[in-house]
Amino acid sequence: MTSISETVDIPGRLMAAEIAEQPQVWARLLDEGRDPIRAAAARIAEYAPRFVLFVARGTSDHAALYAKYLIEIHHGLPAGLVSPSTMTVYGARPDLRDVLYVAVSQSGGSPDLVQSVEVARRQGALTVAVTNNPESALAAAAEIHVDVLAGAERSVAATKSYTAELLALYLLLDGARGGDGAAAAALPGLGEQVLASGDRVRAVAQRYRFAQRLIATGRGYSYPTAREAALKLMETSYLSAQAFSGADLLHGPLATVDPQVPVLAVVPEGAGGEAMLPVLARLAERNADVFGVGAASALESLAGGIVLPGGVTEELSPLLEILPLQQLALHLAVARGGDPDTPRGLRKVTETL
Amino acid sequence: MTSISETVDIPGRLMAAEIAEQPQVWARLLDEGRDPIRAAAARIAEYAPRFVLFVARGTSDHAALYAKYLIEIHHGLPAGLVSPSTMTVYGARPDLRDVLYVAVSQSGGSPDLVQSVEVARRQGALTVAVTNNPESALAAAAEIHVDVLAGAERSVAATKSYTAELLALYLLLDGARGGDGAAAAALPGLGEQVLASGDRVRAVAQRYRFAQRLIATGRGYSYPTAREAALKLMETSYLSAQAFSGADLLHGPLATVDPQVPVLAVVPEGAGGEAMLPVLARLAERNADVFGVGAASALESLAGGIVLPGGVTEELSPLLEILPLQQLALHLAVARGGDPDTPRGLRKVTETL
Repeated sequence: MTSISETVDIPGRLMAAEIAEQPQVWARLLDEGRDPIRAAAARIAEYAPRFVLFVARGTSDHAALYAKYLIEIHHGLPAGLVSPSTMTVYGARPDLRDVLYVAVSQSGGSPDLVQSVEVARRQGALTVAVTNNPESALAAAAEIHVDVLAGAERSVAATKSYTAELLALYLLLDGARGGDGAAAAALPGLGEQVLASGDRVRAVAQRYRFAQRLIATGRGYSYPTAREAALKLMETSYLSAQAFSGADLLHGPLATVDPQVPVLAVVPEGAGGEAMLPVLARLAERNADVFGVGAASALESLAGGIVLPGGVTEELSPLLEILPLQQLALHLAVARGGDPDTPRGLRKVTETL
Repeated sequence: MTSISETVDIPGRLMAAEIAEQPQVWARLLDEGRDPIRAAAARIAEYAPRFVLFVARGTSDHAALYAKYLIEIHHGLPAGLVSPSTMTVYGARPDLRDVLYVAVSQSGGSPDLVQSVEVARRQGALTVAVTNNPESALAAAAEIHVDVLAGAERSVAATKSYTAELLALYLLLDGARGGDGAAAAALPGLGEQVLASGDRVRAVAQRYRFAQRLIATGRGYSYPTAREAALKLMETSYLSAQAFSGADLLHGPLATVDPQVPVLAVVPEGAGGEAMLPVLARLAERNADVFGVGAASALESLAGGIVLPGGVTEELSPLLEILPLQQLALHLAVARGGDPDTPRGLRKVTETL
């Protein structure tokens, strides 16, 4: 990957460099980020929320969805993803006492998120902004700001800011229930290990050179991975990539699957991956072409796959799962003649109202 | 439509008959359903929830999303869509005191929804099941059951049960804040008026005969319409139909749009439709082929459209918006040689764990 990142004017060089940088970003967050995140976690613990709401868009929405699973499973609290339009378009002013309101945004610049945090703060919530920009309007609007410390992200296709958001949210929420985030210490080393299979992924990308559409699927903590993989493929390679939780896939979209529609399945070790096994069986009935990312045992019956190393708990697996899928988006975009650093029709900071 | 529904063995005859039946279903719900829904609404009002959770899958998930907008905007309460796997796969046992927990399901038969309602009830929530089957396990599991009275639905592609769920949820939530649901009285007549444009939609379907992928978009109350239209097209016509809120579309997926990817935009009168106008402008920049359903003024600049009649408030517009889109899914499936009553790979009752 370094060879690409050191040469100018090569399509995707920024994205390649930022993908490769992720283990260092995580190490920085585990080091420099630890104390500020611990302080933020203590304020959340003191507030003792009864409900948690997340607000985000695009890639950051997938980090928010990941955090929603952490809240529901580890904190035992009801949680929701806010539709910002209810406040910005319809003028809703909900009763948000006892609510922890977490906005997630790489740039911290989208006006609708800023406005929704301002409303939430006035309506009684404890507001937290998780961003990659401490100077942003969103960071200023929230009572607590968590800097994900990913460094400037220059490719329009977000990669390192996504996994930095995942890790910051994990550390913040683990800290809020008294954890020390120790389980995350192994991540930088494991990330390097996963990224080393990049050449393998480049070869895999050739299989999808002419695909027009694709389905990504996962369950539980890995459902956000499927969502983010699909978005990355849409942004960079312009194919119609759709993500479904394994359960939702069976409620309708399975009809679209035939051997001409490739499927990416995220099947890590743990409960979420195990819950995918009946889904893989239904896909096999339809002779689907399924490529897996996850546990060796789950990949045995599939058309191909990338085995992830063991050594992390299931809730940290999403940081590793997305790496080969980011590489896939990069290599596929380049193979198709595109430049994933500057996808057509997109801007780095998207301002929606 | 009657000519199709009266003849046997014609592909899509069940779906056609059930689409046509919707105004009668709504009239029945407004008549026979009124008293039981009023009683259920009174119990919710008495409980005075502070937080509302919805749980559903497939088509019913879109009805739940619609109800989430009603809660956030009209009730001023935080709301969320539950990931059932947190309880069924990961064993989460959240603190659900002061929570209204609403499960929505046509069949009331999916084991994961039943289990999640059982858990929610034990964890202190007031549980409500909105189904088309009072004999179902889900109806039995919840403290309150609301029957949507759609009558037996035989086509695998759900249509009348969807709009019956929308109307039942509207009446229930309007009743819970003291409303009498009077605004809904005009719906059956308006529905007949919209359905009368069916021949027009059949001609429109020919335009998409060879489309492999499609994007549906809307904002606010109409975002669930876009989601449901996309699911219906996937289930019956097997194309990759993706739905995005107008705002989310600009955060990434816009890159996939070019003149070869048709867009369906839902742009009714009201705040949600107005918030779509900047999205339509961005789509025009990309020379997208946009077909609209909604207000005449919004459709002027588009490739084509179906104008909806005025006379309903914006929050009831989703019942009318989906009608031509259901007809589109039906006619497109038939034109492509499929039978939307029995899509490949699907079962009427999907049992996920």
